[in-house]
Amino acid sequence: MFEAHFGVPLAGAVLNALNTRLSPGELAFIVDHAASRLLIADHDLVDLAREVARRVAGLRLIVAGGTDDDYGAMIGAAATTSFRLDDELALLALNYTSGTTGHPKGVMYSHRGAYLQALAMVAELGLSPRTVFLWTLPMFHCNGWCFPWAVTAAGGVQVGLRNVNEQAVWRAIREDGVTHLNAAPTVLIDLAYGSGSDAGPAPRRVRVATGGAPPAPQLLARLEELGFEVTHLYGLTETYGPAAICEWLPEWDDLPLEQRVKLKARQGVGNILSQQMRVVDGGGVDVPADGTSTGEVVFRGNNVMMGYFRDPDATNAANIDGWFRSGDSAVIHRDGYIELRDRLKDVIVSGGENISSIEVEQALATHAAVLECAVVGAADERWGEVPVAFVVPRGGATVTEAELIEHVRGRIAHFKAPKRIIFGPIPKTATGKIQKFALRQRLLASNDSDIDRAD
Amino acid sequence: MFEAHFGVPLAGAVLNALNTRLSPGELAFIVDHAASRLLIADHDLVDLAREVARRVAGLRLIVAGGTDDDYGAMIGAAATTSFRLDDELALLALNYTSGTTGHPKGVMYSHRGAYLQALAMVAELGLSPRTVFLWTLPMFHCNGWCFPWAVTAAGGVQVGLRNVNEQAVWRAIREDGVTHLNAAPTVLIDLAYGSGSDAGPAPRRVRVATGGAPPAPQLLARLEELGFEVTHLYGLTETYGPAAICEWLPEWDDLPLEQRVKLKARQGVGNILSQQMRVVDGGGVDVPADGTSTGEVVFRGNNVMMGYFRDPDATNAANIDGWFRSGDSAVIHRDGYIELRDRLKDVIVSGGENISSIEVEQALATHAAVLECAVVGAADERWGEVPVAFVVPRGGATVTEAELIEHVRGRIAHFKAPKRIIFGPIPKTATGKIQKFALRQRLLASNDSDIDRAD
Repeated sequence: MFEAHFGVPLAGAVLNALNTRLSPGELAFIVDHAASRLLIADHDLVDLAREVARRVAGLRLIVAGGTDDDYGAMIGAAATTSFRLDDELALLALNYTSGTTGHPKGVMYSHRGAYLQALAMVAELGLSPRTVFLWTLPMFHCNGWCFPWAVTAAGGVQVGLRNVNEQAVWRAIREDGVTHLNAAPTVLIDLAYGSGSDAGPAPRRVRVATGGAPPAPQLLARLEELGFEVTHLYGLTETYGPAAICEWLPEWDDLPLEQRVKLKARQGVGNILSQQMRVVDGGGVDVPADGTSTGEVVFRGNNVMMGYFRDPDATNAANIDGWFRSGDSAVIHRDGYIELRDRLKDVIVSGGENISSIEVEQALATHAAVLECAVVGAADERWGEVPVAFVVPRGGATVTEAELIEHVRGRIAHFKAPKRIIFGPIPKTATGKIQKFALRQRLLASNDSDIDRAD
Repeated sequence: MFEAHFGVPLAGAVLNALNTRLSPGELAFIVDHAASRLLIADHDLVDLAREVARRVAGLRLIVAGGTDDDYGAMIGAAATTSFRLDDELALLALNYTSGTTGHPKGVMYSHRGAYLQALAMVAELGLSPRTVFLWTLPMFHCNGWCFPWAVTAAGGVQVGLRNVNEQAVWRAIREDGVTHLNAAPTVLIDLAYGSGSDAGPAPRRVRVATGGAPPAPQLLARLEELGFEVTHLYGLTETYGPAAICEWLPEWDDLPLEQRVKLKARQGVGNILSQQMRVVDGGGVDVPADGTSTGEVVFRGNNVMMGYFRDPDATNAANIDGWFRSGDSAVIHRDGYIELRDRLKDVIVSGGENISSIEVEQALATHAAVLECAVVGAADERWGEVPVAFVVPRGGATVTEAELIEHVRGRIAHFKAPKRIIFGPIPKTATGKIQKFALRQRLLASNDSDIDRAD
């Protein structure tokens, strides 16, 4: 996958990195839609790849490694070729988004956009020849936020793992001198509390970039103890990965943990490349920077996609006055830092009031017994919707539904507190995003939507 | 000057930063050639500015600060205006080069080029919100290598000094927490041996970027003791400042000082933006990467100027097959790092052999009594030219001509050793470059060119 990030563009072709956790049918749709002609698959994935190739007419399969190393033979036979790009806006890569409804859409990356986003990542994360970057983020996710190119541009070392698990990650941190990694929150939780951490902190400070959900206080404290410096980022497939960064200011270093967590929970400002980030109301007008007015986050600039491949309708629908609509709801604070309130579709509307599921999750996460949590709206006859929380308790901790609800009521408005707590695992996408639609379906299936509103 | 780096472009005008050490006649030529309409001058420079304005018809003078603060009044009366750039290749700035012959030439910078060079400087020097950058490099030199924009983009602090001297610099380092500065070698010498260093090392590590001449061993050792980490850069006005960097590799950290100095003396590789640097022979063909074959350094890419303003002949003369000719002679080492041998015109041709004046200077600089030195060719009836050295002895040190010549002969080929040593100060340009033409003129004037070749 790493080599393909260079070899495919250098061959004048378009990269289409595939999510290996998708089904053969989903993968066949993507390959067919992209009109990809060649499928390169690791030998561990040969069964899945053959199933995809069987479904797509004219698709050539190349297997890398194993007993039939077509890939090795192909590379060995390749002639050295020089590369010349006449149009910097030429298509570099397609990244199909795992939409929760409808077919996946093929986000189009240009050479120019990826080049600049890679430079921005070098600048923002401080990549250099001293960097030892560990891959835990999949490269099929926004081309790994453009890090295959960024770390190479900086002259750093890249370390890969065949299977990402906390013990393998800790082994790499201890033995390979890892300095940087990008990880979903769920990977950070494993790192913080897994057995690999028993041997003590990392030998070198590790700069960890994370997105998806802001780190909870206990988690952040534990990660700091273990020698991790956490940077909170935000972006979408459509923005080449992190378009925003919670740019940490030196004057925040010495604040108490609780305040630092609050500051770090914010998605921040446009990265050094993408100053063009705004929060606008339904009419496309900027909301006031007051920390309370919500609007939709919109982006413009070099690291916004060229559109969805062969899908002008979806491309147009994601556009407002030339700005890309993220679909995320946020406030903008007085210092210009934005903070997500919700995916627009994740806002819980209860008795005419908007409840931010993220706000409820943050309140829950401050309880010591909560390892992970997710809040969704459950249909309710009287209130329209009410918040319901799914909670993964910390190992060994015992806590009751009533205790957690009381804990939240002590922190935010009573009507925002979950009406019900469901303990158990939380379903996630391949890239570690919590699948709220799956939680909603579980609620529907349990047919238990007549919870009364307490306050 | 700093504000003008933002205000002038935002007003839709072209910046033309003037070297304040030039004469009124030289400045008038530049302002007239650039067709500048407005001259903004600090009140300390009002006499010089009035003299320039007197010579250029239609030039409006604005004085900043002092009793007639036209500038402050103008800023106070300015309306807020929004900025939109329709063409990223629009002219951003002119930088007139102080040519040693003929009139100065106006190097044209585009918005695109300066934007990208600024991003490259952020990445290469590790600028961030923790950066406290001290200005010792003049902003009229390649727009301060694009650092006014780079440090701002990174969210760092910038500290200015009305007069740059080692005591003021040390005061800023100790009191303002300076983390970065860019300085000519002569400034570094003052910092290393000036009285400001008596109070001991810098409180925070200071990253120092320097160009012009590689740091000599004693100087580098002293700077490291004082808490400075020196990065050697190379570039020209025509390349927006540093297009090349001696990118330091972690595996070099623990080498003995002498080896580190040798590695650091190299001008390096293209910066993260300008991979397009080559060393070519007279026919434009790459010289072998063998560390001995010399050729001319040529550049191409985003951080090469758009040309010389109103001077197509000079623009064409500086071009070979679409590459910008630096006029600098260099070798390329096996690892791809280049090392300058000389300005082409500074090569000493003696008995048919090329002598690199830099090589002789480096050999001289290893002598503990040598603070600074410069080597030029003196006309010689028998050999064509022979090397002559100008030496500034270290304070308190006593050394003879014969000792130094013997020292050099112990290190490089005998025919390369200076035939004569002249002790005394070395003339420099406003930006700290040694004026070899002035040294040559001094030799001519002394009419002492019949030195025999010893071998």
